Amino acid sequence: MELELTSLGTPCLLLDEQRMDANIERFRARLAGSGVQFRPHLKTAKSWEIALRMMSSAAGPATVSTLREVEYFAARGVRDLLYAVGVTQAKLDRVIQLRACGIDLAVVAGNLDIARAIARCSKAAGRPIPALIEVDCDNHRGGVDPHDSLALLEIGRTLANEGAELRGVMTHAGSSYAARNVAEIESIAEVERRTAVQCAQTLRSVGLPCPVISIGSTPTAAFGNSFEGVTEVRAGVFVFFDLVMAGLQVCGWPNIALSVLSTVIDVHSSKGRAIVDAGWMAMSRDRGTRGQRIDQGYGVVCAIDGTPYPDLLLTEVNQEHGIISPRPHVGRALPQLHVGDLVRILPNHACATAAQHDAYHVVSGDPPRVRAIWPRIRGW
Amino acid sequence: MELELTSLGTPCLLLDEQRMDANIERFRARLAGSGVQFRPHLKTAKSWEIALRMMSSAAGPATVSTLREVEYFAARGVRDLLYAVGVTQAKLDRVIQLRACGIDLAVVAGNLDIARAIARCSKAAGRPIPALIEVDCDNHRGGVDPHDSLALLEIGRTLANEGAELRGVMTHAGSSYAARNVAEIESIAEVERRTAVQCAQTLRSVGLPCPVISIGSTPTAAFGNSFEGVTEVRAGVFVFFDLVMAGLQVCGWPNIALSVLSTVIDVHSSKGRAIVDAGWMAMSRDRGTRGQRIDQGYGVVCAIDGTPYPDLLLTEVNQEHGIISPRPHVGRALPQLHVGDLVRILPNHACATAAQHDAYHVVSGDPPRVRAIWPRIRGW
Repeated sequence: MELELTSLGTPCLLLDEQRMDANIERFRARLAGSGVQFRPHLKTAKSWEIALRMMSSAAGPATVSTLREVEYFAARGVRDLLYAVGVTQAKLDRVIQLRACGIDLAVVAGNLDIARAIARCSKAAGRPIPALIEVDCDNHRGGVDPHDSLALLEIGRTLANEGAELRGVMTHAGSSYAARNVAEIESIAEVERRTAVQCAQTLRSVGLPCPVISIGSTPTAAFGNSFEGVTEVRAGVFVFFDLVMAGLQVCGWPNIALSVLSTVIDVHSSKGRAIVDAGWMAMSRDRGTRGQRIDQGYGVVCAIDGTPYPDLLLTEVNQEHGIISPRPHVGRALPQLHVGDLVRILPNHACATAAQHDAYHVVSGDPPRVRAIWPRIRGW
Repeated sequence: MELELTSLGTPCLLLDEQRMDANIERFRARLAGSGVQFRPHLKTAKSWEIALRMMSSAAGPATVSTLREVEYFAARGVRDLLYAVGVTQAKLDRVIQLRACGIDLAVVAGNLDIARAIARCSKAAGRPIPALIEVDCDNHRGGVDPHDSLALLEIGRTLANEGAELRGVMTHAGSSYAARNVAEIESIAEVERRTAVQCAQTLRSVGLPCPVISIGSTPTAAFGNSFEGVTEVRAGVFVFFDLVMAGLQVCGWPNIALSVLSTVIDVHSSKGRAIVDAGWMAMSRDRGTRGQRIDQGYGVVCAIDGTPYPDLLLTEVNQEHGIISPRPHVGRALPQLHVGDLVRILPNHACATAAQHDAYHVVSGDPPRVRAIWPRIRGW
């Protein structure tokens, strides 16, 4: 297939294939020398075609954020999956069923209650569910406090001795998304690594198994100076990148592979604003750059060939309307935009913007043309 | 069907049927005495079962925000639809096709360029497309400046004389969502009404037709003191209501019909936080109450029976994780929440939260049970 961008209905999610491929290649090359296994997170893309490019083999390994993703990818042959959101008692039956189909699905346990439930459920099914103990390396969310060795050991013993399989430890330095510079990301990365390795040592010191030490986030995986002691790294948003990652200097705008194609439906030059048919339904309400040094509104506006208008932002969104205006305090006039023009908008947060769409329109070439349409899934 | 809430997978969108029915009934009763036609906006619910309850007949009238909605509702027998987002040249072919199927689909034109395109397309098809001129009553988005009578008349003449059908004027007081009190909403409502009526008078004064004068938003429709001269009112979010509307005093918490069912996956009492499996994927990133007098975070947490914990908020969200904490500065401890407990979270913005889900789990009775599952659509 080959479609002109001008033939697409708007709003529409575009994926620049060359940028995505380069993002994957760069990330893979960085990890290749480190000796760690790469377990890409498939929650950003939720697409089989993209998963195939991110994973080192068609069977995995990979990380997911919902059991719906497990079912979707398992149906296509992926066998090695980590469900990286704290599992619930109610979801353990689905985990058991998926494992019975030959999927090596591991879960995470961040507290004793759920560790006990995993052990109980494993014992009842006569099939040990493998679990990684989730450690809260930066006090940003859930998981075991890494300074609480007693809690860590109690969870470890419960999993290892009461019917489940203690497979290791995992942590995610979510605080890296709020870092202010590269030095800060480097230091967060080192805390993430050290915390995971130390928790593994604590478990091993009493004879508990800990084959897997899993860490990762796109910023810490990109800037961490050492993976010593770690066995695997997880990351997801690197596949597309976005304005939040650009604000963190993890990428530049020319690496951002996602954009939303939109039509100008109204222009008010005297008021310095134009209206497009991409509102929050197409962009999401994510304002991840709000707290960064440079706030990019709801996105940076680009011409149809992908060239950014560097000072033109999507400054406000309603459900199906977006307002385009010059960056605050820049004081420049609106570029020559006319009713009917197509623009492309770079997103704050690729995971959130992609989630508003059911398919990727895969674009390559000059002039850019759509070469494929790849579906994506959602739900739980 | 009859399902216990405890049997549902989480996260999951719940719809309290009784609250929704009461919201619709109250709104209908308010408009009944006013002599205006009600054209409910179906973009909030995007569901046939809910549309049927909102509309005065199974054939409409109704308002929509995408052509996808037109196709979905038209396939179920709705015949009178207003597509209330500025149409594009590229979408006019679909409009012509839908009208050829017997759907009385009207579009809006906020500028001369699109008015010309509508007229051209009408003439080429030999079928006049009806259009309402969009007027920007509060300078918040797109449409004709109501003080620019020349522009208004030029658009009116283009539509009326060059092949299309000039059906009237429409405006939407979007600024009402940012009002600080009821008096302000009343005054915005009066500006909305007066602007539309005056623009109609301007058109009629030169002999142009203007049968329809369409206004509306949930706040202005709820608090406007007069609909004099207006022929129809549009509103959508009243069907569910939400925390933004409660902040505007358009409703109270007990009127909010939507909530997201979620499971507690981690509890850190000493840190005053618990983690649930509803993140932005289930709630959306909408923070509509951020600018209001009382910021409700990403939502107010309720017990499984729907009773709010008034000082417990969803304070932060990641993709599939939500952090529950006491309202800032309240200084109270976390209520007794345990891993595995179910909670319900009231949304900031019903349109945005509902859009994250593919179905409504329709709940009624005491104890609440799921009596039906209604699908909803998305896309363009």
